[in-house]
Amino acid sequence: MRLSQLSTKTQKQTSDSDVSRNAQFLTRAGYIGRLMAGVYSFLPLGMRVLNNIENIIRDEMNGIGGQEILMPALQPKDIWEKTGRWDKVDILFKLKGAGNRDLALGPTHEEVVTPLMAGFIQSYRDLPKAVYQIQTKFRNEARAKSGLLRGREFRMKDLYSFHNGQDDLDAFYEEATAAYHRIFQRCGLGDITLLTYASGGIFSKYSHEFQTVTPYGEDVIYRVPETDIAINKEIIDDREVLAELIPGYKPGDEKKLEEVKAIEVGNIFKLGTRFAASFNAGFTDADGSQKFPVMGCYGIGPSRVMGAIAECLSDDNGLVWPEQIAPYHIHLVSLVNDAADLEKCENIYQQLCDTGVSVLYDDRDARAGEKLADADLIGLPHRIILGKKTLADNCFEWKKRTESDSHILPLEQIGDIAPARSTK
Amino acid sequence: MRLSQLSTKTQKQTSDSDVSRNAQFLTRAGYIGRLMAGVYSFLPLGMRVLNNIENIIRDEMNGIGGQEILMPALQPKDIWEKTGRWDKVDILFKLKGAGNRDLALGPTHEEVVTPLMAGFIQSYRDLPKAVYQIQTKFRNEARAKSGLLRGREFRMKDLYSFHNGQDDLDAFYEEATAAYHRIFQRCGLGDITLLTYASGGIFSKYSHEFQTVTPYGEDVIYRVPETDIAINKEIIDDREVLAELIPGYKPGDEKKLEEVKAIEVGNIFKLGTRFAASFNAGFTDADGSQKFPVMGCYGIGPSRVMGAIAECLSDDNGLVWPEQIAPYHIHLVSLVNDAADLEKCENIYQQLCDTGVSVLYDDRDARAGEKLADADLIGLPHRIILGKKTLADNCFEWKKRTESDSHILPLEQIGDIAPARSTK
Repeated sequence: MRLSQLSTKTQKQTSDSDVSRNAQFLTRAGYIGRLMAGVYSFLPLGMRVLNNIENIIRDEMNGIGGQEILMPALQPKDIWEKTGRWDKVDILFKLKGAGNRDLALGPTHEEVVTPLMAGFIQSYRDLPKAVYQIQTKFRNEARAKSGLLRGREFRMKDLYSFHNGQDDLDAFYEEATAAYHRIFQRCGLGDITLLTYASGGIFSKYSHEFQTVTPYGEDVIYRVPETDIAINKEIIDDREVLAELIPGYKPGDEKKLEEVKAIEVGNIFKLGTRFAASFNAGFTDADGSQKFPVMGCYGIGPSRVMGAIAECLSDDNGLVWPEQIAPYHIHLVSLVNDAADLEKCENIYQQLCDTGVSVLYDDRDARAGEKLADADLIGLPHRIILGKKTLADNCFEWKKRTESDSHILPLEQIGDIAPARSTK
Repeated sequence: MRLSQLSTKTQKQTSDSDVSRNAQFLTRAGYIGRLMAGVYSFLPLGMRVLNNIENIIRDEMNGIGGQEILMPALQPKDIWEKTGRWDKVDILFKLKGAGNRDLALGPTHEEVVTPLMAGFIQSYRDLPKAVYQIQTKFRNEARAKSGLLRGREFRMKDLYSFHNGQDDLDAFYEEATAAYHRIFQRCGLGDITLLTYASGGIFSKYSHEFQTVTPYGEDVIYRVPETDIAINKEIIDDREVLAELIPGYKPGDEKKLEEVKAIEVGNIFKLGTRFAASFNAGFTDADGSQKFPVMGCYGIGPSRVMGAIAECLSDDNGLVWPEQIAPYHIHLVSLVNDAADLEKCENIYQQLCDTGVSVLYDDRDARAGEKLADADLIGLPHRIILGKKTLADNCFEWKKRTESDSHILPLEQIGDIAPARSTK
């Protein structure tokens, strides 16, 4: 993609209303555009980042046997009344449809997926099942000041699993936990994302959050030393969880846990039979008895992950995208003026494109300082500068976004900088 | 995919509330599930069909220079007041957000895209631009009885183009028209989809609809003989359009036009400068003068296209998917019982998967009649039957969904039936 053809431009400043670090950088670099608090458009660069994140999630959900579906945002009141949540979920957007019918905009889909899948679960032979969607969701948040980290409208992957018995759910829950760790690893957040114990409701001692540690986080969690595990604020006084997680726990030891700020990027939850019971969605077991499937739900917010990467991995000069997430691999900058050199640059751009490497080519007629500042702000993993002198020497200048030193390399090595992106 | 592993099952009947042909077949075959009138879930098979349609559209939009974005469904009242449409658009879903703020759910996105792109259009050098999204949209329809053909929540591709002057818009509009023809051709609706003249508003004589001819259609259009062009009901009394489209037109000739029923699957519209003027979104032209960009919008409904294919191309036994749209290419049916034959079937399934052909394998322990009826209902382009006798002869039985005759072929030719699907 040529920067001269890209639909967006970088901006020096954003409006005061976006105070969060992720919104500042993502807006200035042209990844997102704000419509109102907590509601953003994804622009071409941002769309590519979002797709990369969603495709990683999709790949891992398919890997544990999830089948992709797409459920509606519009949901009738009656299904929310069946589960007793119409009046309890305070962030529910409510509206009137034709015939004055009460509707909600889905912030989650237990009320839809349970009766939907019940139509296909009559026998123990129909279990287990796991379906997921990657979809736009809605929460009527009172305050939404954190860019992509707390949206009123946001992207969500939610997987729902249905099992014959608790053991089967427990085994799948472990698989899903491992898949979540792989997702955050592939998104570049693996080292700073902690499996965090949270309260579990009546069907399970705990649920689990995935919390990305950052001073800009809105949540407070307590890290268990020398582990990748943490405990959230809600249950830090629960001696049972403390005894389970801290070897040789003695009362008071919880004060030694490291208190850190974090962003919740995912959560997984054992739902038990509550929702199946609400819809009277039973099945016939091998012995002829009627049972309810035991359910689990597994959420992760792709747009929030995008915000978390922007919030946690950027530096003072702008965004810093991990290789698998970046909208393009290489930011190619031409700093030449005369026709012969410009043609050389064009040929190098074409050559890189032909080998399947994704390249953002700054072919604009702009000052060197502006081009280099934009490259830092946009934050692709590799910057290649083509200057008059290096081109004359049949060389190019290469710098990684995460490093400060650049390297002069011969042009024949330009194809080795970044891998061709798989089409997966 | 093994049918025994698929999350859905076929059904003999659907509830009475879905009277349309497309909803009947798509529900019975397990492609969609109804939540309420005009609101459906897409199940794994349906998701694959929808993705195939959306990827064809994406490919053609990228081909004319469109850049993909994603805009919000939640839209504040003030932008709809600026264009004077808050009270005029009767199908607008309205709701209250935090702080009692009035919001709408987007049925279209002129109010969002115009100020959004204005931030990147300061100079004539920034034009033309074309951005599109493929997104869930909302219309508060009074009646929604036509399955995927008239949804309250539905998938939509909307592209918006911005130009310096009418000539540039006109040229792009022609390109978009050609791209639309290619989309319907690739979706298997090319031969029955007519470019239909409709009224144009103040900036253009006409707009254009793409209407798919079917006795099940809700619209009435008038076909110009020996052409792929039609005129819609709204402007059939407009002598100017009649004179333009019918060679040697004389008053009264319009009575000779063939009246047919049809489904509107797309529409394109020259918007002029109306929306840019509403948002005072001007640019500086080469001569220093201030101008408004001339806009066009180009809509197509992927879920409606899916419904139109189901409505128009199915037969009495079920769905009939075109090769590029089908969720899988081959429906592989094993009609054997003993272990050695079942192992042969497993090997053939694996072999087909390994060559990159997409296969739905009916490995269920079910009666032959049920398996064959399900194959017809699900509607994949190729059916392969593996029976005891044909396997003993190292053969397989192949039938196209669109043909009644089957063929016995040697097993070594099984890889030639369907092409490996490109990853594009």
